[in-house]
Amino acid sequence: MQHPFDTAIALEPAGQDRFFGRTSPAYANMVGPFGGTTTAVLLNAALRHPQRQGDPIALTVNFASPVADGDFEIEAVPVRTNRSTQHWSLQLRQGAAVAASATAVFALRRETWSAREAVMPPDMPAAAALARAPFQALPTWAQRYDMRFTEEDALLQFDGQEHAHSYSRMWVRDEPPRPLDFAALAALCDCFLPRIFYRRHRPAPVGTVSLTSYFHADASLLAAQGEHHLLGVARAQTFRNGYFDQSAEVWGQDGQLLATTHQMVYFRE
Amino acid sequence: MQHPFDTAIALEPAGQDRFFGRTSPAYANMVGPFGGTTTAVLLNAALRHPQRQGDPIALTVNFASPVADGDFEIEAVPVRTNRSTQHWSLQLRQGAAVAASATAVFALRRETWSAREAVMPPDMPAAAALARAPFQALPTWAQRYDMRFTEEDALLQFDGQEHAHSYSRMWVRDEPPRPLDFAALAALCDCFLPRIFYRRHRPAPVGTVSLTSYFHADASLLAAQGEHHLLGVARAQTFRNGYFDQSAEVWGQDGQLLATTHQMVYFRE
Repeated sequence: MQHPFDTAIALEPAGQDRFFGRTSPAYANMVGPFGGTTTAVLLNAALRHPQRQGDPIALTVNFASPVADGDFEIEAVPVRTNRSTQHWSLQLRQGAAVAASATAVFALRRETWSAREAVMPPDMPAAAALARAPFQALPTWAQRYDMRFTEEDALLQFDGQEHAHSYSRMWVRDEPPRPLDFAALAALCDCFLPRIFYRRHRPAPVGTVSLTSYFHADASLLAAQGEHHLLGVARAQTFRNGYFDQSAEVWGQDGQLLATTHQMVYFRE
Repeated sequence: MQHPFDTAIALEPAGQDRFFGRTSPAYANMVGPFGGTTTAVLLNAALRHPQRQGDPIALTVNFASPVADGDFEIEAVPVRTNRSTQHWSLQLRQGAAVAASATAVFALRRETWSAREAVMPPDMPAAAALARAPFQALPTWAQRYDMRFTEEDALLQFDGQEHAHSYSRMWVRDEPPRPLDFAALAALCDCFLPRIFYRRHRPAPVGTVSLTSYFHADASLLAAQGEHHLLGVARAQTFRNGYFDQSAEVWGQDGQLLATTHQMVYFRE
């Protein structure tokens, strides 16, 4: 049986640079599908394109409107292919309207000097020592992730008490478990709860307008993660006049930084 | 007399969604122009487009190849205009080849609850107390910025001694001074020296492949900066197999966070 994530990002070739897809009820959000699956299916069009070269290193998705439940078309154009990099322009359309536009950079990597600078939080209890967060009250997509928080990091209640920061950590993996790959990691980069919830401890209408993820892992490092939980750490930088940004890191086994991800989020009061 | 930055980002309308521009020797890099002016001239095409609505909040530029010195054409397409946001797809071309592709999100902002989370480094000496860095040895574009470092933050020498981190701070403004606007801020977001220089203290061939900037300031907050120095803070997260990422903040008067910016950078050993 196909994993629900693979159903959500499935594409059917539809001529040169074109694919057909369809939203998946298993990843439904409040309105339309989870942005993470929209992100992943856009990336998947480049991953499955016959002219693909290398693996993704950077992906930006701009969410132009809610995606309506149902069919969509993706145009994936390799606008430039160099010796070691490939640049993509991607659009998800429903009828004549662009619902999401994106760019991606793929690269052929070589082994070089490497070094870590950001540090994995050293004091997070093991995933096995924490309970899975009960997300029955959240939209369906949140059930597709096994997220585990310490009491300190959990968003326990909307008591309206404004907090001094929005930093939080969680263990996260696909539910049911699924071996990690670029599409799954791209989706997971969008699964951090909106930082304004952590900051204000009250609900607010929010929507990601632009999401950028950088993939530091190559395919073999992703494969080495298997179905293990990954450690996600997120924080905001500033909230101002209807928009805030948030940045996150996704850590794998042995303290490897798999991805860094940033987004600009719309909010209403 | 026109400021050299305005010369560098000047555009001539060339039919629907099209503009002509030309690289500027005043912002020359090692090969082709400074990526910051390429970024700014792409943004400028959306800023000057007759259908523009609102101000930029997010900008991503993918550098597909070095821009050759001389003429270029920019295509700027407003792919979707909503009530409060507008989504742009942008390409810079020379002949048939795409040298840079970009997306931008513009928005009409309203006053809302706002809050700061990241904090401006409290202990940076005033710009007036520091000397302008002598950048005669760097490419021409670096002369177009007045950058001021403490001794601790300056990249004094390439002694090959690897450092534990790449964090650094600087005061920076256009040289000669120029009132701040979105185009200038977009360029300034790319003027942080590559973090691998700080980390390894040795030269290396580098090139930004993808740059994303989030603008937290609106036009009036930018105008309030005048020609003052801004405080830039940059760091890397990880260096791995030919690529590293770096993130930076640009701070203005009264500790206002004007922009956050992220990039993925190619390097060779």
